[in-house]
Amino acid sequence: MKLFDGGRAPNPRRVRVFLAEKGISVPLVPVDMGALGHRQEPVASRNPLRRLPVLELDDGTVITESVAICRYFEELQPEPPLLGTGALGKALVEMWQRRMELNLMLPVAQAFRHIHPAMKEWEVPQVPEWGEANKPKAIEFLRVLDKELADREFAAGDAFSIADITGMIAVDFMKPARIQLPEELANVTRWYAALRARPSAAA
Amino acid sequence: MKLFDGGRAPNPRRVRVFLAEKGISVPLVPVDMGALGHRQEPVASRNPLRRLPVLELDDGTVITESVAICRYFEELQPEPPLLGTGALGKALVEMWQRRMELNLMLPVAQAFRHIHPAMKEWEVPQVPEWGEANKPKAIEFLRVLDKELADREFAAGDAFSIADITGMIAVDFMKPARIQLPEELANVTRWYAALRARPSAAA
Repeated sequence: MKLFDGGRAPNPRRVRVFLAEKGISVPLVPVDMGALGHRQEPVASRNPLRRLPVLELDDGTVITESVAICRYFEELQPEPPLLGTGALGKALVEMWQRRMELNLMLPVAQAFRHIHPAMKEWEVPQVPEWGEANKPKAIEFLRVLDKELADREFAAGDAFSIADITGMIAVDFMKPARIQLPEELANVTRWYAALRARPSAAA
Repeated sequence: MKLFDGGRAPNPRRVRVFLAEKGISVPLVPVDMGALGHRQEPVASRNPLRRLPVLELDDGTVITESVAICRYFEELQPEPPLLGTGALGKALVEMWQRRMELNLMLPVAQAFRHIHPAMKEWEVPQVPEWGEANKPKAIEFLRVLDKELADREFAAGDAFSIADITGMIAVDFMKPARIQLPEELANVTRWYAALRARPSAAA
């Protein structure tokens, strides 16, 4: 098996952090996304959407989409559980993973892609007004998250999960997207610092 | 248990179609989204993001996010499996569910929300240029999907899954979003017609 990897980009990194938390090692095939390598071979023939990450199994089967790759490894090696346990636990992790992705990661990515000059070839057309409109959306969600984190350690409860991985990487991504984490959000700040202190954050 | 439901809106409908395929009946609490009921009680205190659907369990526990609610029911009643079976099967369903959601449902929804006059209070600010930019994104994905569907019946393989539900509802949503399904996409057309013919499509 091999994992076509995209370096610093958020989605490839989600899988690497997940694997680090699981203690799983997969051979990486680095792809230079800065040179738009994900739109060329060896990625393009494996993923018709021409995006990373891409996991290729030994029989040639391909799995794309960061969360789908994570689920594959969760099924192969359930411990430590990062997608929740039991019907309710799995549902709550999925709920928070989606909240983090759709209400934080996505707005941050939109702000970055529609405003940053380096994204001109990635996002056609860039619509700066839409990029700007996303910044308050991200902040609004962080305010909701701050209240939620007042009485628990992690996004989906007392256990670390994929929702925290998505959240940490989204907050990391706020820096190049030029969105400031409001200082008064003490619970988010504490949560984020704890995630950044885990060894997996370096993956 | 009760499900706060939002009528014709795509996300509440995803859960209803999923439950119909499972043969599960849950008491519905209708909420008038046209009157912005999802931003008021009884929704607002249950979902801080003020969106539907919302599932409330008998002990008061709340699950939001359509796919998370679906996962809860999949765990409670695995048959028929709509989220895949086995590590690879689950990963491929998740991959296709995400592809349908992020590359079809999301662009269609953006086109609708940023262009349709009825969405003025929902999407602030409306950015028509961004709405228009999403129409070719949806079409581009449908072209990829058409090739994929050339040699199989459903999105994620030979079995119906949640990926088909998301896809069908996204194609339905193209009508109010004023995006035309290109006639030459024969495989998508055949797939969509088969989904629409299932009893669950009426849910």
